[in-house]
Amino acid sequence: MPKKLFSIDLNKKMDQQAYPGHNRWHPDIPAAFSVEPGESFRMECLDWTDGQIANNDDPSDIKQVNLNRVHVLSGPVYVNGVKPGDLLVVDILDIGTFPEHEWGFNGIFDKTNGGSFLVDHYPHAQKSIWDFNGIYATSRHVPGVEFAGIIHPGLIGVAPSQEMLDEWNKREKALVDTDPNREPVLANLPTEDAAVLGTLKGKEFQRVAKEGARTVPPRENGGNCDIKNLSKGSRIYFPVFVDGAKLSVGDLHFSQGDGEITFCGGIEMPGWIELRVNVIKNGMEKYSIKKNPAFNPGPVMPNYSDYIVFEGISVNEFTGKQTYLDANTAYRNACLNAIEFLKTRGFTGEQAFMLLGTAPIQGTVAGIVDVPNACCTIAIPREIFKKGVLPEMDED
Amino acid sequence: MPKKLFSIDLNKKMDQQAYPGHNRWHPDIPAAFSVEPGESFRMECLDWTDGQIANNDDPSDIKQVNLNRVHVLSGPVYVNGVKPGDLLVVDILDIGTFPEHEWGFNGIFDKTNGGSFLVDHYPHAQKSIWDFNGIYATSRHVPGVEFAGIIHPGLIGVAPSQEMLDEWNKREKALVDTDPNREPVLANLPTEDAAVLGTLKGKEFQRVAKEGARTVPPRENGGNCDIKNLSKGSRIYFPVFVDGAKLSVGDLHFSQGDGEITFCGGIEMPGWIELRVNVIKNGMEKYSIKKNPAFNPGPVMPNYSDYIVFEGISVNEFTGKQTYLDANTAYRNACLNAIEFLKTRGFTGEQAFMLLGTAPIQGTVAGIVDVPNACCTIAIPREIFKKGVLPEMDED
Amino acid sequence: MPKKLFSIDLNKKMDQQAYPGHNRWHPDIPAAFSVEPGESFRMECLDWTDGQIANNDDPSDIKQVNLNRVHVLSGPVYVNGVKPGDLLVVDILDIGTFPEHEWGFNGIFDKTNGGSFLVDHYPHAQKSIWDFNGIYATSRHVPGVEFAGIIHPGLIGVAPSQEMLDEWNKREKALVDTDPNREPVLANLPTEDAAVLGTLKGKEFQRVAKEGARTVPPRENGGNCDIKNLSKGSRIYFPVFVDGAKLSVGDLHFSQGDGEITFCGGIEMPGWIELRVNVIKNGMEKYSIKKNPAFNPGPVMPNYSDYIVFEGISVNEFTGKQTYLDANTAYRNACLNAIEFLKTRGFTGEQAFMLLGTAPIQGTVAGIVDVPNACCTIAIPREIFKKGVLPEMDED
Amino acid sequence: MPKKLFSIDLNKKMDQQAYPGHNRWHPDIPAAFSVEPGESFRMECLDWTDGQIANNDDPSDIKQVNLNRVHVLSGPVYVNGVKPGDLLVVDILDIGTFPEHEWGFNGIFDKTNGGSFLVDHYPHAQKSIWDFNGIYATSRHVPGVEFAGIIHPGLIGVAPSQEMLDEWNKREKALVDTDPNREPVLANLPTEDAAVLGTLKGKEFQRVAKEGARTVPPRENGGNCDIKNLSKGSRIYFPVFVDGAKLSVGDLHFSQGDGEITFCGGIEMPGWIELRVNVIKNGMEKYSIKKNPAFNPGPVMPNYSDYIVFEGISVNEFTGKQTYLDANTAYRNACLNAIEFLKTRGFTGEQAFMLLGTAPIQGTVAGIVDVPNACCTIAIPREIFKKGVLPEMDED
Repeated sequence: MPKKLFSIDLNKKMDQQAYPGHNRWHPDIPAAFSVEPGESFRMECLDWTDGQIANNDDPSDIKQVNLNRVHVLSGPVYVNGVKPGDLLVVDILDIGTFPEHEWGFNGIFDKTNGGSFLVDHYPHAQKSIWDFNGIYATSRHVPGVEFAGIIHPGLIGVAPSQEMLDEWNKREKALVDTDPNREPVLANLPTEDAAVLGTLKGKEFQRVAKEGARTVPPRENGGNCDIKNLSKGSRIYFPVFVDGAKLSVGDLHFSQGDGEITFCGGIEMPGWIELRVNVIKNGMEKYSIKKNPAFNPGPVMPNYSDYIVFEGISVNEFTGKQTYLDANTAYRNACLNAIEFLKTRGFTGEQAFMLLGTAPIQGTVAGIVDVPNACCTIAIPREIFKKGVLPEMDED
Repeated sequence: MPKKLFSIDLNKKMDQQAYPGHNRWHPDIPAAFSVEPGESFRMECLDWTDGQIANNDDPSDIKQVNLNRVHVLSGPVYVNGVKPGDLLVVDILDIGTFPEHEWGFNGIFDKTNGGSFLVDHYPHAQKSIWDFNGIYATSRHVPGVEFAGIIHPGLIGVAPSQEMLDEWNKREKALVDTDPNREPVLANLPTEDAAVLGTLKGKEFQRVAKEGARTVPPRENGGNCDIKNLSKGSRIYFPVFVDGAKLSVGDLHFSQGDGEITFCGGIEMPGWIELRVNVIKNGMEKYSIKKNPAFNPGPVMPNYSDYIVFEGISVNEFTGKQTYLDANTAYRNACLNAIEFLKTRGFTGEQAFMLLGTAPIQGTVAGIVDVPNACCTIAIPREIFKKGVLPEMDED
Repeated sequence: MPKKLFSIDLNKKMDQQAYPGHNRWHPDIPAAFSVEPGESFRMECLDWTDGQIANNDDPSDIKQVNLNRVHVLSGPVYVNGVKPGDLLVVDILDIGTFPEHEWGFNGIFDKTNGGSFLVDHYPHAQKSIWDFNGIYATSRHVPGVEFAGIIHPGLIGVAPSQEMLDEWNKREKALVDTDPNREPVLANLPTEDAAVLGTLKGKEFQRVAKEGARTVPPRENGGNCDIKNLSKGSRIYFPVFVDGAKLSVGDLHFSQGDGEITFCGGIEMPGWIELRVNVIKNGMEKYSIKKNPAFNPGPVMPNYSDYIVFEGISVNEFTGKQTYLDANTAYRNACLNAIEFLKTRGFTGEQAFMLLGTAPIQGTVAGIVDVPNACCTIAIPREIFKKGVLPEMDED
Repeated sequence: MPKKLFSIDLNKKMDQQAYPGHNRWHPDIPAAFSVEPGESFRMECLDWTDGQIANNDDPSDIKQVNLNRVHVLSGPVYVNGVKPGDLLVVDILDIGTFPEHEWGFNGIFDKTNGGSFLVDHYPHAQKSIWDFNGIYATSRHVPGVEFAGIIHPGLIGVAPSQEMLDEWNKREKALVDTDPNREPVLANLPTEDAAVLGTLKGKEFQRVAKEGARTVPPRENGGNCDIKNLSKGSRIYFPVFVDGAKLSVGDLHFSQGDGEITFCGGIEMPGWIELRVNVIKNGMEKYSIKKNPAFNPGPVMPNYSDYIVFEGISVNEFTGKQTYLDANTAYRNACLNAIEFLKTRGFTGEQAFMLLGTAPIQGTVAGIVDVPNACCTIAIPREIFKKGVLPEMDED
């Protein structure tokens, strides 16, 4: 086991940990510890909500979750000798659960507090608890399925520069200003409420909390990308914007479907992750990886190979209005088509929705040029169903 | 070999074939022939442009292509006993090239005539010719890569009902009316120019040509979905809207990247496809597959398993403006990030763009809820490059 | 399509073809044509028995097959400039069936004429006919299964040197001499009966026929390796023993299980194969590939990933006698265990046996050191069965 | 984490553990604990040699290992209600390393003490230490490779009945009697030396030690099958021979090549395994699984898909003598061919040999009927090499 460690006490909130992590992006959040290039280390992580969701059958905690507390991250880790312009190479050596916490949660956020990808179809909060049986997950709330998770960090990223941070805050505020009272919100702007900023205190805390970017969206620094294939064995190439890169990680998922369409989220859990860092000097210019990390996925994704696939096109499902190559609408329709099918196979709509949010389903941009319709698909592995799901032909 | 056949003479245009196919969607286009459920048959197909593109180094034909002639389809095939409300089950038994035509083309459409997914970055027409060496494709215009194609029909669909057709025309006209002079056009509306409508003649021809929907976009009937994984061995479940279903197919691709981002298109080719049809009576209601086909992909996709992946988020790359979960923008940025990287590996921007349009790359909707940024990824198989492409670490 | 061609008339025997191929290995069989390194060419092939087996339900032709006529090969092809000591690099670009012959056969050879791997359990001749539906095979003689074949040449090899040939004949004769009257024979020695030797005539024919090695076993030159994964897209590195290498190919299989345990054989068929050749000068020494080819399998094997696996150990199944690490016995027991299981799932023993000989099953040397038992396994893809085959747990 | 536990103290030998396991097969070894069908539990395991091998560069411990102490197993576990004739269904839910012991060993046994599959080529003891970096293994003794292990128990089995045990001892003694002084031994017969038999003491210990079968070979009860694909997520169907089945497990491998050709062994390690048991009443008859378990491998094997493959045939490599379909000789020649090739790529013969014993290489029975030569292949994933290994063509 690597020696260097970010330790977590599962019975405490992030701001009460021996070394508190953080839930905002800011270059001035102090590093938790430093490592040399080539070194491996282990990070323990709380679940992204800071422990707000309980293992029971009542979705009230989902409905009332304080989203200002998300995502509690472990780190930052300062990598000695790394400078802006370099590429930070991060290997995800392994990820695991805590033996004393072998369950996770998925939920559909309420329209009034976060919402989801299908918020206008499923506006009410829901919750499903998933039990881990070794590599497999099952849920008493979604019976009839069992699958091997593609365990991954929903969120991993490096610190932004002050300039980059300012740009983020500016562009996101401009978006919110177009419809400031919308439910759900168009974007989450900086707020001091529930901010956790490592060891910062007093005035420094207040300054950083006021301008620290929320962790909700993915951005140029990586962050909350929610990429299900960024799993064990992956190698990530991060552009570096501040001295030491300041790497942070959290929001571990036991499994997630592409799109994380329920928003809350994949199968969310606390756990640990082992990382190794290296550097490519001046790699940003050399390989032209200047914003958004690139990565090489690991070799141990589940070998599911038999899928049932649903298509969607970019025509609004309520109004019938034709949009122009709107992939968001197309993927939403693909999801809705899949859910309608699953409802004929014994699932409720909510169960089907949560299944698409948690199982290793694949969401694909199939066609994005055939004006005016984008075509997106959603592919569900047949192997996850305990009984057959394919339509049966009359002569079978 | 199945007996029933839609034959093609490669030296003739579609309207001059022994039995002309069609390039519009309309319930009244006469069937080319009929089959029984359970029967297999072979369809020969021209390339989607009706032979407008030549095997040379000059992209003028791409620039000046008459898009009113696309997509020339083989069919329709009438399936005896099939009624609206049924599901038509179509097995793609095999697909192949003609021995006398072992090449295909890819191109970037010009901004003034079709455009592409990256039209504002690459506004000028380009062309690449791809040679088929058995299962592999190579191009003198994109040296350094060789890959096994996932051969598939870009377009396969059933006839719409008159009511559905009217709805298509209405919603697409409403979109065009918002900006009728836009280049490229927002949608292609019905036109008599270059229409091919099977054996229809005279007044019937004129009526159908006037209201026949263009084949460019995918729609509720399937159509031009451009799904690269809808390959050999796949089984498709089509909702049926007219008696006999009236199945048509064309736009064969030797290979295509997800999104078909160059628009013209994947690796386009004439060829043949073997199909088998079956029926599930009243299957639309039974399985709730009422619009857009569902499918089960075949088992012989290339086993590429080692990818380099690029991410993109939904911030406009020219203005820096923040959009709200715009997956189209996110995928565009992922493509642009990939191209910038490939430019450091010896490709021109245009070559890299055409490579993403032709190779079996995967486009994924990774995260679609983390307001305000969607995250899309593009994954390129490392095995297609003749030399290593991954960034090298300093200590390697 | 490549220009150079070895043509076959399906209505004629090999010795009646425009250019006759051969069914013996000898350095002096004249080349059918020559090619340059880098060149592609197409070889058409008869089935390995020279058309002795008919598409009917009667196994008499299997029982009475003249094994002196096998394997009729297409070639040899002389590769200009290639010398002993080089490596001949052969790319299998594609393989296919003839549209007018979309079926193949599998059979269990009779104990009195060839025998099989399970000859003492299944001593009587049997036959199954397999129909090709595009990429899929089904059989009226083995209902309940359908699978995508891994199409491959059972036999591909280069000519031996005279010295190597003499060594083969010597060592095989020594084996036969230990039990000359055994049924089935221990090895097939040279015989003039039914020999086909290209354009050789008269005395030369007689000389070569007398010493030409039979094509039955794989040897240092490749030959009848019956490797199911040597399929489309594979690259083979052959050691070269004579000027021009003299490459020959035949015995095409639509599909085969590892071991080809029925002996007659996989799914046997006539068809065509496209090859491309290159050379590595002095490659035998450089890469120490001096006997037996090495190869890199192609990327388009079926993605079957869900198997039911049976084990066998090296204890004789009749006598209970313990052998020492006898992998042959271990694999035989694994096959027998699989067959006994399949008999509880609705197959006869003969059907199960022929299924293991034809489907893409995997035979593995699992453990070969744990004295005194070798452990071999046989893995059957679950996806090939139309209905579920796994044992069901009591609580399911 | 499952509650029921077989605990191990890594600093103690097996016979000193709180509850000692066993290293012999006998129906009368007392169960360590009992579980109900449906229950999950965790077994901690010592390495198979009982800690005889140290993490250093000196192979003396390999040479002098006391093989009478192997394999130390955890268990037996009694499954309530299970009877002879039932099938015991065992799910391997997960397997892992101990954080305080993230390394394993591989070795070539000396000819005078165990030997190996290539004992006449590599008669001297060798050792390689492998470090675990999350899912990856590397070795200072075999530089230039890194691979994701397919972690699995080399040994898992149920207790034999007394009748079955007697049969084992009888048949193995008969084999040893054919050459009692052979080096290495033909089989390991029962011996009291170093026997560990759970809580047995006194006369009972002596009786059981005298007749307890050695754990070295795989047998009808499963046992030391060394099947590399019996990994996480697998489901095994064991025939049951005694009340409660009495399941035991040990010999964990971080990784192993097919055949475990070095004998000592794969990458050997202590660790833990999580199991879940169920029962199929009278399943032995119902599914005809009467000897040797069947299994369904798990879905998380590494996705290596690009191999370099070597062939071997059944001609003795020293004498040139022709054997009759001897798969053992054929696989040995395939291994030797692979090693000779790897020696041209920078490895010593011993390194190459140990690499084939540890990496996820595939050993296949390709052809087993083409008299007189069996053909076996060994396939090495190209992805495990840090630099390219394929032969380069002259024009590349």
